[in-house]
Amino acid sequence: MNALSANTPPRNIVVLAGGVGGAKYLLGVREYAREHGAEVTAIVNTGDDATMHGLRICPDLDSIMYTLGGGHDQERGWGQVGETWTVGEELKEYGAGPTWFSLGDKDIATHLVRTQMLDAGYRLTEVTEALCARWQPNVRLLPMSDDRVETHVVCTLPDAEQPSAIHFQEWWVRYRTKVPTTGFVQVGAEQAAPSAEVLAALKEADLILLAPSNPVVSIGPILGVPGMREALRDAAAPVIGTAGLINGAPLRGMADVCLQVIGVEQTALAVADYLGARSADGVLDGWLVAPGDGGTLDAISVAEAPLLMSDAGATAQMVTAAVELAGQVR
Amino acid sequence: MNALSANTPPRNIVVLAGGVGGAKYLLGVREYAREHGAEVTAIVNTGDDATMHGLRICPDLDSIMYTLGGGHDQERGWGQVGETWTVGEELKEYGAGPTWFSLGDKDIATHLVRTQMLDAGYRLTEVTEALCARWQPNVRLLPMSDDRVETHVVCTLPDAEQPSAIHFQEWWVRYRTKVPTTGFVQVGAEQAAPSAEVLAALKEADLILLAPSNPVVSIGPILGVPGMREALRDAAAPVIGTAGLINGAPLRGMADVCLQVIGVEQTALAVADYLGARSADGVLDGWLVAPGDGGTLDAISVAEAPLLMSDAGATAQMVTAAVELAGQVR
Repeated sequence: MNALSANTPPRNIVVLAGGVGGAKYLLGVREYAREHGAEVTAIVNTGDDATMHGLRICPDLDSIMYTLGGGHDQERGWGQVGETWTVGEELKEYGAGPTWFSLGDKDIATHLVRTQMLDAGYRLTEVTEALCARWQPNVRLLPMSDDRVETHVVCTLPDAEQPSAIHFQEWWVRYRTKVPTTGFVQVGAEQAAPSAEVLAALKEADLILLAPSNPVVSIGPILGVPGMREALRDAAAPVIGTAGLINGAPLRGMADVCLQVIGVEQTALAVADYLGARSADGVLDGWLVAPGDGGTLDAISVAEAPLLMSDAGATAQMVTAAVELAGQVR
Repeated sequence: MNALSANTPPRNIVVLAGGVGGAKYLLGVREYAREHGAEVTAIVNTGDDATMHGLRICPDLDSIMYTLGGGHDQERGWGQVGETWTVGEELKEYGAGPTWFSLGDKDIATHLVRTQMLDAGYRLTEVTEALCARWQPNVRLLPMSDDRVETHVVCTLPDAEQPSAIHFQEWWVRYRTKVPTTGFVQVGAEQAAPSAEVLAALKEADLILLAPSNPVVSIGPILGVPGMREALRDAAAPVIGTAGLINGAPLRGMADVCLQVIGVEQTALAVADYLGARSADGVLDGWLVAPGDGGTLDAISVAEAPLLMSDAGATAQMVTAAVELAGQVR
């Protein structure tokens, strides 16, 4: 039983989130929190993280940090506004790969600070906090783990006869998922654990939300950190997810492609079924879907609400709907 | 005895050189070599090298590489033409020091490639060769050592009561030498050695030149690598130095300040005396000075020649004068 309602809104909201979509969703959660005096903590996917040119790159953490800090490029949809590309052009002149990944100059400064701090022995959680001291996202950003867990994709590259596992970034950015793909693996997961900060946040939360991020390669890697599912199941707070598919199509990104790879039907309800009911072996108490996408699921409460994140206000309405749903579950 | 003359010019010229002045001199040596079918190897000071923001920076190697590769900013006198400064501005936004050192974006690409290669286990000699594959300086650039040797300066900082040792870059760039200074130390020198490539180049040379670089903090650190003086003394080739002081004043840089610190008179002849005769305990066979700066030195042949490096042609004339002097020594 939990007591959440429009009259007793949550005080501590924890959001599991991926990159660009997660950032957009968090703008709404922050808006909701501002109206209701709540604190927001985001547990962010680091499965996309990579080391390029010796720099440690955390695309999802950075997308969220820049977006919440007001520094993101709204038009391009990723990276920073006013970005320049001198370093990357020069790296190409040196023939230094990978050439399929564009690193902006502003972005490189972030990676330099991060890499130097990591090399000095700070945990990614601490590094993220230090970077956020500049950006002031007003949401506490926590990497899903301080350990290195990287999503790799099993696929057959052009002209290759055998499948190989390539880094998620290469599959996503270089091949744009257009190679025969059979699965995803989380390299390093067996040695990884959620940080103490993540475990404490989940324990202290009175509402846990899953952003409408890609369920396979954004939410999936977070849930894949050993101990994370158990922490979610042990949490006192209800767990409410929001579908990233509307009428079977992703709002942005390639969730449909990823679902196809793992053999899950590309519908909002099938995704909830895949994530599972918390009372069984899964993580969800409630599932918010777009109008018309609803239905009945075993042990997961389903509600319909408009899910277009057109602005922070509209997205905050999605959070209100999630809070209402949370008040009804269990 | 050696057979160098206008009729039998050198085939293998080795130049000991510092940064910006050394680069200018090497433009002339390269011009001379082109006219006479010679090969040029530069043994470059790495005492200025530093690690900033986790990047390994080799100011002298880079100044020479950019200059010989045609990419240097002639107007500013250092760094690359068309340089931008986005990364540095962003690092300042993060409060990441040092803020007194300007790192250009193009330059950062060089440092990223270098740092990554060094981290992967390549020697600085190999890294320099790889970077030069792009710049095609037409002079073989060899760091004076693959070992880390950094020039530190013993000085009393503003508001400090006791002297301390700071990195040469900080003394040069941040304090512009305007702090009470008592000496220079080469941190790491006791564990350093010239690379096999440096030793082989000195052995195979038929002419060894000292660029008119700062004798204390450019030529000095090269000579300070244990084994370097011995290698110069054992070389078959004559060693001809060129004064960087004209009528007691440095053409550029702060050689006068550095000489004052170590108690050497700020004249061309005093510098030669400080470097010493190869037949005694020093490194010089001959010493080229500006018209009017000549005189007699014990066991070092002195000749006068115009020493203004106004362009590569004029500088090549200085090399011709050095070759002539080399034909007269011993």
